Amino acid sequence: MKSNLKNIAVLTSGGDAPGMNACIRAVIRTGIYHGCNMFGVTQGYQGLIDNNINPMDARSVSNILHMGGTILKTARCLAFKEDEGMEIAFKNLKAKEIHGLIVIGGDGTFTGAKRFGEKYGINVIAIPGTIDNDLYGSDFTLGYDTAVNTIIEAIDKIRDTADSHDRLFFIEVMGRDSGCIALRTAIASGAEAVLLPEKETSLKELISKLKSGANTKKSSSIVIVSEGNKYGGAYDIAKSVKRKFTHYDTKVTILGHLQRGGSPSGFDRILGSRLGYAAVNEMLKGETMQMVGLRGNEIKLTSLDEALNKHSYKLEADLLEMTHVLSI
Amino acid sequence: MKSNLKNIAVLTSGGDAPGMNACIRAVIRTGIYHGCNMFGVTQGYQGLIDNNINPMDARSVSNILHMGGTILKTARCLAFKEDEGMEIAFKNLKAKEIHGLIVIGGDGTFTGAKRFGEKYGINVIAIPGTIDNDLYGSDFTLGYDTAVNTIIEAIDKIRDTADSHDRLFFIEVMGRDSGCIALRTAIASGAEAVLLPEKETSLKELISKLKSGANTKKSSSIVIVSEGNKYGGAYDIAKSVKRKFTHYDTKVTILGHLQRGGSPSGFDRILGSRLGYAAVNEMLKGETMQMVGLRGNEIKLTSLDEALNKHSYKLEADLLEMTHVLSI
Amino acid sequence: MKSNLKNIAVLTSGGDAPGMNACIRAVIRTGIYHGCNMFGVTQGYQGLIDNNINPMDARSVSNILHMGGTILKTARCLAFKEDEGMEIAFKNLKAKEIHGLIVIGGDGTFTGAKRFGEKYGINVIAIPGTIDNDLYGSDFTLGYDTAVNTIIEAIDKIRDTADSHDRLFFIEVMGRDSGCIALRTAIASGAEAVLLPEKETSLKELISKLKSGANTKKSSSIVIVSEGNKYGGAYDIAKSVKRKFTHYDTKVTILGHLQRGGSPSGFDRILGSRLGYAAVNEMLKGETMQMVGLRGNEIKLTSLDEALNKHSYKLEADLLEMTHVLSI
Amino acid sequence: MKSNLKNIAVLTSGGDAPGMNACIRAVIRTGIYHGCNMFGVTQGYQGLIDNNINPMDARSVSNILHMGGTILKTARCLAFKEDEGMEIAFKNLKAKEIHGLIVIGGDGTFTGAKRFGEKYGINVIAIPGTIDNDLYGSDFTLGYDTAVNTIIEAIDKIRDTADSHDRLFFIEVMGRDSGCIALRTAIASGAEAVLLPEKETSLKELISKLKSGANTKKSSSIVIVSEGNKYGGAYDIAKSVKRKFTHYDTKVTILGHLQRGGSPSGFDRILGSRLGYAAVNEMLKGETMQMVGLRGNEIKLTSLDEALNKHSYKLEADLLEMTHVLSI
Repeated sequence: MKSNLKNIAVLTSGGDAPGMNACIRAVIRTGIYHGCNMFGVTQGYQGLIDNNINPMDARSVSNILHMGGTILKTARCLAFKEDEGMEIAFKNLKAKEIHGLIVIGGDGTFTGAKRFGEKYGINVIAIPGTIDNDLYGSDFTLGYDTAVNTIIEAIDKIRDTADSHDRLFFIEVMGRDSGCIALRTAIASGAEAVLLPEKETSLKELISKLKSGANTKKSSSIVIVSEGNKYGGAYDIAKSVKRKFTHYDTKVTILGHLQRGGSPSGFDRILGSRLGYAAVNEMLKGETMQMVGLRGNEIKLTSLDEALNKHSYKLEADLLEMTHVLSI
Repeated sequence: MKSNLKNIAVLTSGGDAPGMNACIRAVIRTGIYHGCNMFGVTQGYQGLIDNNINPMDARSVSNILHMGGTILKTARCLAFKEDEGMEIAFKNLKAKEIHGLIVIGGDGTFTGAKRFGEKYGINVIAIPGTIDNDLYGSDFTLGYDTAVNTIIEAIDKIRDTADSHDRLFFIEVMGRDSGCIALRTAIASGAEAVLLPEKETSLKELISKLKSGANTKKSSSIVIVSEGNKYGGAYDIAKSVKRKFTHYDTKVTILGHLQRGGSPSGFDRILGSRLGYAAVNEMLKGETMQMVGLRGNEIKLTSLDEALNKHSYKLEADLLEMTHVLSI
Repeated sequence: MKSNLKNIAVLTSGGDAPGMNACIRAVIRTGIYHGCNMFGVTQGYQGLIDNNINPMDARSVSNILHMGGTILKTARCLAFKEDEGMEIAFKNLKAKEIHGLIVIGGDGTFTGAKRFGEKYGINVIAIPGTIDNDLYGSDFTLGYDTAVNTIIEAIDKIRDTADSHDRLFFIEVMGRDSGCIALRTAIASGAEAVLLPEKETSLKELISKLKSGANTKKSSSIVIVSEGNKYGGAYDIAKSVKRKFTHYDTKVTILGHLQRGGSPSGFDRILGSRLGYAAVNEMLKGETMQMVGLRGNEIKLTSLDEALNKHSYKLEADLLEMTHVLSI
Repeated sequence: MKSNLKNIAVLTSGGDAPGMNACIRAVIRTGIYHGCNMFGVTQGYQGLIDNNINPMDARSVSNILHMGGTILKTARCLAFKEDEGMEIAFKNLKAKEIHGLIVIGGDGTFTGAKRFGEKYGINVIAIPGTIDNDLYGSDFTLGYDTAVNTIIEAIDKIRDTADSHDRLFFIEVMGRDSGCIALRTAIASGAEAVLLPEKETSLKELISKLKSGANTKKSSSIVIVSEGNKYGGAYDIAKSVKRKFTHYDTKVTILGHLQRGGSPSGFDRILGSRLGYAAVNEMLKGETMQMVGLRGNEIKLTSLDEALNKHSYKLEADLLEMTHVLSI
């Protein structure tokens, strides 16, 4: 073990994601297992500035593995973007002789961690935690799998009532810049169409697809709308479609924040545990300024530089084609 | 068995509700068990007019007990309110020698059934099926219990993320005229406050409750808003509160149609089975113009006259008081 | 408020049941609301003897409403059946000036509470908490509704695989002396037959039912076996049936302790909240040696004497008949 | 399109797995999209022999995406291992001019498909469908992810009651030859120990781990037992442990067949859809004797030869180490 890494802190930042607690538990216990003193920072970077940095033992993370949200809480923090805020954060860590920082979050979180680590020589390992699955260097981000399950369970329920009433539903899901959630949930729910931020779909094309379903006796239709699509949201697109296509009774559902919560899936619990475990082990081996990610079935490191530069989800062409073919 | 009840039809009408399929299964199989010919009407009263009335055997209702929605579909039907529409419906039943009609739905459904039964001498038994739990003569209506479970599972997820971010959520639930769902889900989710159609809550009082929670270290707060409350919906009330109370970050969720779907709870499957079973048995005993309902642990009859006249859910004073006391 | 009821303790005893935490929360907060000092006893009567009696404030029951199990833990306690144990328990309460005791559990729990209250003049209110639903004076006991939902979700999963393989499943559920759970889950899962502790079913009759299903093209069959039935458990009965009826591949599942856990249903959360709230209110009105229960939609008191003497679930004849009729 | 592939059949064989229906739907609709005539074989290879081979259109797979089990049913078939059985199967396909066969199942299924394809020149594409996740050439097999979720939901419930009673639970999960499910669910449920078919764990070591947990105030402990471990099952190992370690009350749960059923997770619905879609596309490109699998985020082909020879799950050393470290 590197001698200056006796004390390590962990924080969650940005939007919360299911599996963060499993990950915190893994970080704390792996550190303790290796003889480190572990600290939890409350409310992300704000907690660093507010000196909300508390020692955690093995029992402090009991019975959290299966819980949604994050016991360390999270917050967006403008002050940490300023030199002054960072300076205070550093002094607080220094006073506790904490030289290692593990951050769980998305690319905003990583940007802050990188700047902070470089400026003050703090060892930093980052863990991809966001439901959006839009980070480079990991096949999956923490929380994405649970969010997909939550969404399809909701859509399954809506399909029941859609079928009973011969309805057309527009369902808005999260993903302002990334259509990953929308595209995958469209396939998983058997949606008739999907509108994505990355790709224009003409209204004409959409209506033609819906008509063809109606003509071949589909008793209901579901369109998934990513919140960042060009038509401005599910209400707007529903209004436009309704004007030209009246076969079904048309309804809109905005799934909203329930997509962020819930007990993590097995996949996210295992992913969170593996990433937290690996983050501490890599840090103790001397790694810094790296993100731990899952590729195939292996944990791999990606430098924060690369992770941030190559950011952005690439729409999978075969999946997009599938949404069309499988809903005939 | 009354000799003219050899042939019986069943339909679902109004909004769909989980448990309707369990109920349809019970109606069909109980009838067949007693030697009747059973018919299913598709799309409620519209199906009577369109002659969408089909024989059903015991296997036609296999594997539907656990499904949400209604395999018979449902629709609102204006034509059945006209004499002409009713006349056609009657002729269609007459042609098939169907003298008994079992209807599953809410008070709109009952009103139509009563008029139809009286006018043409059709034997009618009604089954209370609506998630709103606002019918006289039954402690519970079919679908209400499942809707409550669906809503609290959604709110549990939202609570995860609310706690992680110190947020205040306004969550709008169904119940335009009846606060039963809102009041009960408020208790079941530990909500800090609830806004109901039956009762005015002053903005001042609401904000005072939220402030008191913030002062005693509640890390999040949840307000349930019934869609029929006087402030016009969750978005409006959230805006009004935000103007005067800024302790929490404020968010809104409209749960929408997912409240109507989903696999029925055990309670609704048993209720649907009992009501369907009783409906056929009572009809074969000669009863007509009655609603079957559950009171305590027993099935009881209420005349459609009484059910319709005494309609309306009475806000339970002790439950209302509890929402306040238990969320201190 | 009666002046000697400034201090009130609550405990859970016997088998745990979902909804106990919702009930504990209601007891603690209702007491605090009325100005009482509230105490939680850990591990039931054993905790009284071990002086494991701790003050609880409103925040000590935050975020437990939706959790299965009981934060106060529970245990069977032989020592409390002895005079010596009771004496110690009393001294511990007396030292803290606790004159009111609220117990949540089944009839074993009630028997202890009654003897203890009578002997030492402690005010006692009992709350029916057991998944077995076998107590007199309440239409439902706390935990029963959740257990039914848990069981039918498991059976729904088993039905998937049973149908895919044309199998016959024997599924053993809890209820050593009471067939309530078995009978109701049989209806809610569409089981082909049910074996109960209260009623003999001949092997011949059972096999005849299964044969008739096979002859009318049922692709799978499910038999619910109550753990207390006369044939000695699901494995034994499966073996006997297999010897004489080989149409299906036969499998056995013992659902076991997962029936006891899980987040409580909306019904149990509301029931637990109402019963806990009522228990404190009745105690403060001066009531003692009473059980609070739900009848119809109202909270009613039953004396512990009556509750204990009239104990035992009465098999509902119509439900039993329904298991036969609805699975044709 | 290859001209002799106008007609394609699909079957499921071996144990059923959640996601098979999503996969069948994808196969049927992708084939129809490309202008093929699609056939479904009922009951696996037995259906080939029994000529239970039926045309399927796009609507025949409506509303099955979210269902557990397989609408094509599955069965083990000894006759197909004989030359005579294979000959009949071939004649049945030939009579319908079916030259392409897509099989969904595990390695037993693949072995049959390979022999059949080689002998009669039938084009064969195999899809890995088994909850055991023990096939070479795909990071995940169809059904594994859902099974993990089902198991951890069950264990979460058991943890509730284990904590309330200070209990030690031995929970037996599926995986006769492969510890993948046991190892992963152990991590996902926070189990204190896991017993695998691939690795001996000494009783002494196990008890030492449990003692250490008891000493550091764990209120309950859970041991996952793979059905194929060397101690012969959860009951046996529980008995051996109980003899030497009595800190906790000890209980056993055999999860059994509920692990096979249930609505597939989002992951399995997407996986099933992708594999089914790819299977048809690859077949139409002229591929044969190949398995389609997921590696990283891409669909890859593995020859049936390689898939069968390299079969067997490799225990991940880091995951095994994690079960120990994370449960301190």
